Amino acid sequence: MSSASDTDSPPFDDLHRVLEQGAVRRAARMLNALQTAEIAHLLESLPHKERELAWNLVDAEHDGEVLTYLNDDVREQLIGQMDKSELIAALGGLDTDDLADLFPDLPQTLTREVLRSLDQQRRERLQTALGYPEDSAGGLMNTDTVTVRPEVTLDVVMRYLRRLKDGLPDITDNLIVVNRQGYYLGVLYLTDLLTHDPEETVAEAMTLAIKPIRATWSAREVATRFEQHDLVSAPVVNDQGHLLGRITVDDVMDVIREEADHQFLGQAGLSEGEDMFAPVLLSARRRALWLGVNLLTAFLAAWVIGRFEDTIAQVVALAVLMPVVASMGGIAGTQTLTLAIRGLAVGQLSRKNARWLLWKEMAVAAINSVVWALVVALVAMLWFGDPRIALVIGAAITINLLAAALAGALLPLALERFGIDPALAGGVILTTVTDVVGFLAFLGLATLFLL
Amino acid sequence: MSSASDTDSPPFDDLHRVLEQGAVRRAARMLNALQTAEIAHLLESLPHKERELAWNLVDAEHDGEVLTYLNDDVREQLIGQMDKSELIAALGGLDTDDLADLFPDLPQTLTREVLRSLDQQRRERLQTALGYPEDSAGGLMNTDTVTVRPEVTLDVVMRYLRRLKDGLPDITDNLIVVNRQGYYLGVLYLTDLLTHDPEETVAEAMTLAIKPIRATWSAREVATRFEQHDLVSAPVVNDQGHLLGRITVDDVMDVIREEADHQFLGQAGLSEGEDMFAPVLLSARRRALWLGVNLLTAFLAAWVIGRFEDTIAQVVALAVLMPVVASMGGIAGTQTLTLAIRGLAVGQLSRKNARWLLWKEMAVAAINSVVWALVVALVAMLWFGDPRIALVIGAAITINLLAAALAGALLPLALERFGIDPALAGGVILTTVTDVVGFLAFLGLATLFLL
Repeated sequence: MSSASDTDSPPFDDLHRVLEQGAVRRAARMLNALQTAEIAHLLESLPHKERELAWNLVDAEHDGEVLTYLNDDVREQLIGQMDKSELIAALGGLDTDDLADLFPDLPQTLTREVLRSLDQQRRERLQTALGYPEDSAGGLMNTDTVTVRPEVTLDVVMRYLRRLKDGLPDITDNLIVVNRQGYYLGVLYLTDLLTHDPEETVAEAMTLAIKPIRATWSAREVATRFEQHDLVSAPVVNDQGHLLGRITVDDVMDVIREEADHQFLGQAGLSEGEDMFAPVLLSARRRALWLGVNLLTAFLAAWVIGRFEDTIAQVVALAVLMPVVASMGGIAGTQTLTLAIRGLAVGQLSRKNARWLLWKEMAVAAINSVVWALVVALVAMLWFGDPRIALVIGAAITINLLAAALAGALLPLALERFGIDPALAGGVILTTVTDVVGFLAFLGLATLFLL
Repeated sequence: MSSASDTDSPPFDDLHRVLEQGAVRRAARMLNALQTAEIAHLLESLPHKERELAWNLVDAEHDGEVLTYLNDDVREQLIGQMDKSELIAALGGLDTDDLADLFPDLPQTLTREVLRSLDQQRRERLQTALGYPEDSAGGLMNTDTVTVRPEVTLDVVMRYLRRLKDGLPDITDNLIVVNRQGYYLGVLYLTDLLTHDPEETVAEAMTLAIKPIRATWSAREVATRFEQHDLVSAPVVNDQGHLLGRITVDDVMDVIREEADHQFLGQAGLSEGEDMFAPVLLSARRRALWLGVNLLTAFLAAWVIGRFEDTIAQVVALAVLMPVVASMGGIAGTQTLTLAIRGLAVGQLSRKNARWLLWKEMAVAAINSVVWALVVALVAMLWFGDPRIALVIGAAITINLLAAALAGALLPLALERFGIDPALAGGVILTTVTDVVGFLAFLGLATLFLL
């Protein structure tokens, strides 16, 4: 991909090669010249043994940051490989929000030691961050806010900034305006600070339109807010409006990416933290579970077919054609299901407009069922020369496409209502429905009209 | 979703209701109080007729911006509804990069008129933007750069900014440093401008580490760069290093979202611009194509079964069990395929490490094929009481799971090599392979050993 183009993006393939050749020093130089996110990306693209080798070559000072960028599986592998003192050193330099993300993956014995190694302020910040779920606004936020009071002039603000000994935090597009009690009032964009008259007060130059994010919002709600308001950073408050921290767009991009991975990988029964090069036994165990669930549904379909053994024994053509009926239903239903899951994920499908989607999808299915019932009936007629088989398969396709649209449109909302993730369970249930309905309709009608 | 929580996010369900009640004025007030991106989001979540109604309620001044946020289908619908003068008025206020995005969707007759209505500078900018594909860095960039020279002092820069009559563009985190000939040198972060000594020169305070993006990069490469370097905005240059514009993170979030939609919707044969409430006939026509392609593969599988009609006539149990073999292969293969497509999309899978993935997936398949072959054979034995059927289905499952892993790991890279999008075609081809191999292995072995 990117490495093949004319970009000056990191030379992944080169590094793979150098590692294979065992040119350790050169590999170390190449690795440590990269950004920490790039190192993480590269580690994820290496098989297990090469990954451990490469991890040992990463400078200790980068270790902590690289860990924050890794997916869960890979992170766990590499943490498992480090000894206690290495780990504590790596974690020491991290921001408290990054530390909070890593915390659940650390060995129990270590978390206490890490907590003890922090100063009072950092320990308190870490405990605040740990108080919110990882996928909530509270879990996403940083506590590195720079705040100003509304009554001071811009000139004073600028002098204050120039005295900050560490400069401003990365991705600072605004200063947060709070009152004396720490309640959020608005934001002062750096662009306004730079272009307004320095004699103006913060209150005059600040923007009130940025509504704060509540710490209890889900990560998905935060992402929607950022996307719809084109935000770079946003303040986070508690239920009383007290400023707690801020969320920056780099973390929001990660949320969007993770949600997308969850949706895409989830429907194949994979987790979004899946390591492409996970150990064989671990992968086999995880996959086995998914295969087992699907085997149960396959046996359910087989059981339905089994009810019609006598019919099939008399008309073997049915065995030849029955997968066509099931497969058409599965394909059509998956289209509706995919559209509905996506609508739900971006917040454009709710109970309010779901019936519109249902009617539209039923109408689409009705049209397509007529078209394809005719085509399939014609092919069946030409193939087996029996008009009754043609009629039966045409009718079965019609029934299955309508059932598929119904299931595809209703399943996601129904599953969500019961607290089941549609991205994970939707596909399995849908194809169970279309298999069972397809076989039942086709073989049932055949039993009625062909024998 | 979001509307159900305690957020102060836009009251979509309320608006649906108000529109249904025909309370037009109230609906208009509610609509126009929203951000343009929120209006677009809402319009997408409305069925066709309600959408047209709501679109007429949107203030004309917002029209242009709302159009830029809509997906292709919905945008086309609403543009089709506007008359020429409305459209020209709506487009007049847009940035040239937004205008360039809309241009391909405008009626031919209109594009000339729009070009004529622009002043010299805007026309040139528009033509530059139109010179690059929509999904390239050149197509993503804005031309609203604010540039400074390296030799001036920060103090001079600040005085210059204060004289800018329109202030700084949205999402400005840095000023771009260019030499007299317009070649890119580096960026001056606003945070550095505010915290460094005003007597320093731009050259002293600027950051050299931000490598520029080439206008020819793909949108995907741009997104990777932003994600890995935590960028808010980045300069875009031509092949000679001449500054052309800049890309901002809001557009990159859209890229990530669109890529994700493409991947998720594409595997069900839907386009990423799919309108959830597209007109029934349009939807039916689009879906018909996908169903047709899949019907061909279903008939191919049926044809394979048809070769074994005699075998099935003698052992009807085969008809009952054969979908189990095909389905297990499809499920297992889809897991490998999904992992590989995802790896390819994020640039972590290349020809270099593909053979690692292949070996790992084959090993996982080998383990699972033994486990599940035994389980299925046992069930078949209990069900039909024939050890030969049990043996045959066990062997067929083993063969199909191995074939599935092979196809799942190799297909994405092979398809990409031939310029075919794996996200679109991968699933169809994979299940064709697992159906054909599954039926062939099961019925073929049965013919050899059972008759």
